[in-house]
Amino acid sequence: MITLSDTPGLALYQDLYQQLRQAIQRGELSCGEKLPSKRKLSEQLGISVNTVDAAYAQLEAEGFIQSSPRRGYFVLETGILPQAEHPPAAAPAIPVQPEAPVQVDFSPQGMAREQFPFGVWRRLMRTCFNEYDPHILLRTPTQGDPGLRAAVAGYLYRARGVRCTPEQVIIGAGTDNLLLMLAYVLSPDYTMAVENPLYNHAHDLFARLGHPVSAVPVGPEGIELDALPEVARVVVYTTPSHQYPLGFSTPIGQRTALLRWTSHSQHRYIIEDDYDSEFRYESHPIPSLQSIDRQGRVIYLGTFSRSVAPALRISYMVLPTALLTVFQREYHGFSSTVSGFEQAVLREFMETGRFDTHVSRMRIYYRARRRSLVDALAPLQAHVELLGQPAGHHLTLRVHNGMEEAELLETALAVGVRVYPISPYFLGEVPREYRSTVLLGFGGLRDEEILQGAKLLAEAWLPNTGGTA
Amino acid sequence: MITLSDTPGLALYQDLYQQLRQAIQRGELSCGEKLPSKRKLSEQLGISVNTVDAAYAQLEAEGFIQSSPRRGYFVLETGILPQAEHPPAAAPAIPVQPEAPVQVDFSPQGMAREQFPFGVWRRLMRTCFNEYDPHILLRTPTQGDPGLRAAVAGYLYRARGVRCTPEQVIIGAGTDNLLLMLAYVLSPDYTMAVENPLYNHAHDLFARLGHPVSAVPVGPEGIELDALPEVARVVVYTTPSHQYPLGFSTPIGQRTALLRWTSHSQHRYIIEDDYDSEFRYESHPIPSLQSIDRQGRVIYLGTFSRSVAPALRISYMVLPTALLTVFQREYHGFSSTVSGFEQAVLREFMETGRFDTHVSRMRIYYRARRRSLVDALAPLQAHVELLGQPAGHHLTLRVHNGMEEAELLETALAVGVRVYPISPYFLGEVPREYRSTVLLGFGGLRDEEILQGAKLLAEAWLPNTGGTA
Repeated sequence: MITLSDTPGLALYQDLYQQLRQAIQRGELSCGEKLPSKRKLSEQLGISVNTVDAAYAQLEAEGFIQSSPRRGYFVLETGILPQAEHPPAAAPAIPVQPEAPVQVDFSPQGMAREQFPFGVWRRLMRTCFNEYDPHILLRTPTQGDPGLRAAVAGYLYRARGVRCTPEQVIIGAGTDNLLLMLAYVLSPDYTMAVENPLYNHAHDLFARLGHPVSAVPVGPEGIELDALPEVARVVVYTTPSHQYPLGFSTPIGQRTALLRWTSHSQHRYIIEDDYDSEFRYESHPIPSLQSIDRQGRVIYLGTFSRSVAPALRISYMVLPTALLTVFQREYHGFSSTVSGFEQAVLREFMETGRFDTHVSRMRIYYRARRRSLVDALAPLQAHVELLGQPAGHHLTLRVHNGMEEAELLETALAVGVRVYPISPYFLGEVPREYRSTVLLGFGGLRDEEILQGAKLLAEAWLPNTGGTA
Repeated sequence: MITLSDTPGLALYQDLYQQLRQAIQRGELSCGEKLPSKRKLSEQLGISVNTVDAAYAQLEAEGFIQSSPRRGYFVLETGILPQAEHPPAAAPAIPVQPEAPVQVDFSPQGMAREQFPFGVWRRLMRTCFNEYDPHILLRTPTQGDPGLRAAVAGYLYRARGVRCTPEQVIIGAGTDNLLLMLAYVLSPDYTMAVENPLYNHAHDLFARLGHPVSAVPVGPEGIELDALPEVARVVVYTTPSHQYPLGFSTPIGQRTALLRWTSHSQHRYIIEDDYDSEFRYESHPIPSLQSIDRQGRVIYLGTFSRSVAPALRISYMVLPTALLTVFQREYHGFSSTVSGFEQAVLREFMETGRFDTHVSRMRIYYRARRRSLVDALAPLQAHVELLGQPAGHHLTLRVHNGMEEAELLETALAVGVRVYPISPYFLGEVPREYRSTVLLGFGGLRDEEILQGAKLLAEAWLPNTGGTA
């Protein structure tokens, strides 16, 4: 029995459609049953034939009923839906690490938001978001905006000696995304040799995509060549200019040795992840592996997360020509993963020279914050050792006060300071020499916070001396 | 022999550094050789000791030389770089399909740029790009901006009956990117059963990530249930509401049958790709599979490429709770692939109701363009057949004039009209019934272009009748 309701906002035809649909689903109208003709139903309900027609059309489109020429409408078999024995539970909340509030957080991810050129960026957004640009709403080619790729190629040559054409540059939504593309296009018989420790998920990612993976120790002399797998097809993943998290820079001799090792087979490649190349503070940056590679064996990776902003999910990868051919064949037809509009804004930022200016300014800014932190740690100096090069956005600190990592973190937290562990970056056991090592980021802190944090750390870590060694 | 040049813009220390470095690399200064003391070299060259000090520091940082306390600086083994037998060739240009200029291009990718709400979007960008928002420069959580996910969950419930919490929503840089995540987190013993034909790369993508893949025919009755692989762990990829490219909508009976099939094992899932759910024109949209699923077996996919803009690489995926747990475990720690800023703008667009308004307006707009095209094709009506539902941005046209696909495309091109083939979407041979079928997009065309294009097509396809059947 159909009774049309007066539900506001519900069109009559929708009401009728829903009631008929429910009747079918509840089995009140069963398979094969003939529906009243449109005219008859319209008279019964006092509504127009058009309304019934719309409801029947909807039911027909959804496959609840079928029209048979000159005979009318019949109910179709719609099937009984299986019911869950246990209905699905509500989704669990996304797990978040509850973090105690602290006075000073030495997060290595911290960034100086107030230094961002909001005004410039806003102007560029206005310029780029232009209704007369026929491309602004469209996706870019798979490898990214050609103008941005040319700007990246030019910048990399000036800043890092990287020699490539814009055709070799691939823009992707973050380094993880580029690694996923790379693991995807490389045939699974390539062994991936990754540094240990390592800052990202490359190990799991390559393994998940079917590649044999080997973790190779890395230290002050770079990745251990003797521990590299002696196979014909291999890709070595390394951060030679500023090892993350250890902070070391691979000496030139070891760099050339790695390139020589690679030359022993035609199918050996190196992924050079130069993630914070813009932030080397006390000397001219060390030449990139790509710039001294003569054989086209280096895949160069970089990111705008640090040099512009982490929100901007834009990284880039420079492929040697042999791999570019593979990439273009295997990844053909996939969409670019980065917003065309944001690529256009970044392209303008680079083409107008503002990127270089911004990077120079930020280098000076972060160098000063690093200097402040090093100075502020003076009271601890007899008990700590800085590892690696002056670069990036954190210090790698080896502490000689008898505490191991967990105790260093806990005692710091007890005085309201968060420092960061190095152990999560290691695959397997942490080697003895890094068991008392922690990370102190300085990118997001003001000088007074740095001073205050260092003072509290001295109290936490040298309690018997009153914090002054 | 060192002679400092007067190269403008080159600091003296850089000049000295480069000359020494070249001398070492060319073997003029060999391993173990002692360098002149800083004082001596500064006197020789008539430059300050500080300049020499900077150059030596740079060489030392790069591992070319080493200082030995009280003895001086010594050249280190830097190794000879292997040379390529054949130096790498210049990168090939990115292959582009050279396309002949045409009068009317019925591209299924066409969009109505002039209908985009540029003013509204600009205002939202201004509001969101706010230096006082502490999160605006930071990456969002892995699954995306929580506010955007809540807005998507709300919209999907209103528009498609999808029942989910914001926790179940994952934001990604396009559907390819979400499928890659999904293929990544699912264990490789899941067989992926994909529709054939299919609009995207899901087949290759799943195969590449190690999943057994099975192509299952699809037609007016939806995916063929009898052809689904009878294995315990399987994920069926389907576009039930508007099959792309065929245009069919799976009837409700087949939908429930697919859900019943899925219920036969605990590890059977369905990917419901509802890529253009916003654009159904002649009846109320058919209920999504997700909305009638009682067992938590449907992974629901959607995108903003069509409803907002393709440049905006934003799609979403709703995971059933069982898979959400797997996702959160396996994909833990990866970065979101979508710009935090653009997520914020889209969130505002949705939260302020402007998305709903825009979609309603665009639905009316595209429905009118579709109607124009159908009307314009009237001269051909005795010779063509429209497949599928009135939805989306293209017509699927079966032509009965004796021509097969290639000839249909060529004869159209000969009169200056581009129509699109259906064959690239098929894996393997095109079934007989689709060999004379082409796609005509209408999204990017004005009515006069549509009229002109249809007139030319009639001339091309019905030459003997003077274009009027």
